[in-house]
This record gives sequence, C-alpha cells and structure tokens, in this order.
Amino acid sequence: MADYFRLYPIGMIRQQESTATIEVFEEYKEGLRGLDQYSHLHIMAWFHENDTEERRKTLLVHPRGDQRNPLTGVFATRSPVRPNLIALYTSRIRSISGNIIHVDPIDAFDGTPVVDMKPYLSRKDSIPEARGPDWSKT
Amino acid sequence: MADYFRLYPIGMIRQQESTATIEVFEEYKEGLRGLDQYSHLHIMAWFHENDTEERRKTLLVHPRGDQRNPLTGVFATRSPVRPNLIALYTSRIRSISGNIIHVDPIDAFDGTPVVDMKPYLSRKDSIPEARGPDWSKT
Repeated sequence: MADYFRLYPIGMIRQQESTATIEVFEEYKEGLRGLDQYSHLHIMAWFHENDTEERRKTLLVHPRGDQRNPLTGVFATRSPVRPNLIALYTSRIRSISGNIIHVDPIDAFDGTPVVDMKPYLSRKDSIPEARGPDWSKT
Repeated sequence: MADYFRLYPIGMIRQQESTATIEVFEEYKEGLRGLDQYSHLHIMAWFHENDTEERRKTLLVHPRGDQRNPLTGVFATRSPVRPNLIALYTSRIRSISGNIIHVDPIDAFDGTPVVDMKPYLSRKDSIPEARGPDWSKT
C-alpha cells in the first residue's frame, strides 16, 4: 500500500454575510454538470488549520472541547483534529451558477479547501433510526 | 493554499465470506474508543485502483457505466473515478472487537484503504426528503 495518497483542492468554502458558497476552481467546473438535479450535497473539505504533525497524532478528545464529555476516540467524533483532516458537511443546495454553489449555512471557516463533493442519496444516506450517545444528540 | 494534502491509510476494508470488516491498524486503535455507542458509521476510503493521473482527470461519466444515463459531472455522481478518490460508505455497526469493526455489507473491494471514519449522526446526516434525478433512485 502507498505511504500516502495525494489530495488536491478542487475548490474553497466561502463564508460571506451569513451565506455559504462553494467556489469550485475553473478547471473542475465541468464536474458539476447535473448537480442541479439534486436537493442536497455532501461536501468533503480539509481542516487545513489543523494540518500539523502534532494534531494529526491526536487520537483521543473530549467531544466539542467540553471536559464533561468522556474522553473519546476521534473516529467516534466529528472532531476537526484527527489523523486525516477530512471534514464532512451535508447541506441543501440553494442554487448553482457557473462554478459557484450556494448552500444552506455550514459550520466551516471561510477559505476552507474543498476536496470532493457527492450528491446526497436519501436511499443510501438517510438513516433516521441511527443511534448514538446522549451527548451527541444536541 | 498547499499544492496537495497527505492522506495516510488508517486501516483496510476486508471482504470475507460475505461479511465486511474494517481492520484498523494497531497504531490508530485508540481512536475507536466510544464508537460502540453508535449504531451507524461513515467510512471514508480511497479508490486506490483508480489512482492514476489519467483517471483522476476524469470530470464526466455515464453514471454506473450505463450509456443510457446522461453524461454527468463526477461531483453529481458517486463514481469511483474522480479527482480525489474518496469513497463514502455508510453502514450499520454489527460489533467491534479490538481493532476490528464488523459492519453490514458494503460495496467495496477487499483491501481498500480506509482513510477516516466518523459516527453517523441522524440529526445532521439523515435527510429523508432529499431529492435526485430518476436514475439515482434505484
């Protein structure tokens, strides 16, 4: 197996005046064809501000930085500190114009690099009965 | 922005006798603490068999390789050919023992590298009303 895989930024999250947009780089724009037929989108981004050797070694966190939450493995949290800094956002598509996708608010910093996007498929992705611990429910 | 980000394999998908497991490498095992409190899991893997410069340049595909489906941008499909070869699987956790997670069947090759895992949070991830084109519904 390869030592590591290369992930290239394909766009950027922009946060302006309480609206969130995904700005897809011109050379990847063709990859959006047909996305307007979907209502919702998975956005994979990169927590670039945590891209240090030290933070990527972190395997245990108090979820949400709250000491009252039990020390938990990063793969059992959505923590932005983890070995591979992949963020997963799921949002409603408001509109698409050219290489710009307007989406419902997402909790991401302006300038966050985007590495992939996928259409949300309710038959695969929607699991209303999924359960988790109490602290994860709010 | 960095030219590229480095993604390190943290485990591997194993397919044996119709059961799927995620084998997490020993050095990342601690990151699983608390995952047993969740019923479902997002698994991010790497479509390593498509990791060639040529395939990563592909921006348009006929979904599912079926010419009857309209030529579609890769970001509007779950195609395994795309600029960054991130796979997103969502599955039910059957059991966890040590560094091995047994999950409901997923459509992945044996030996596929895993790069991240996240708990499924129904309040964020479950969107039963999400819509897509007809060919995506089956």
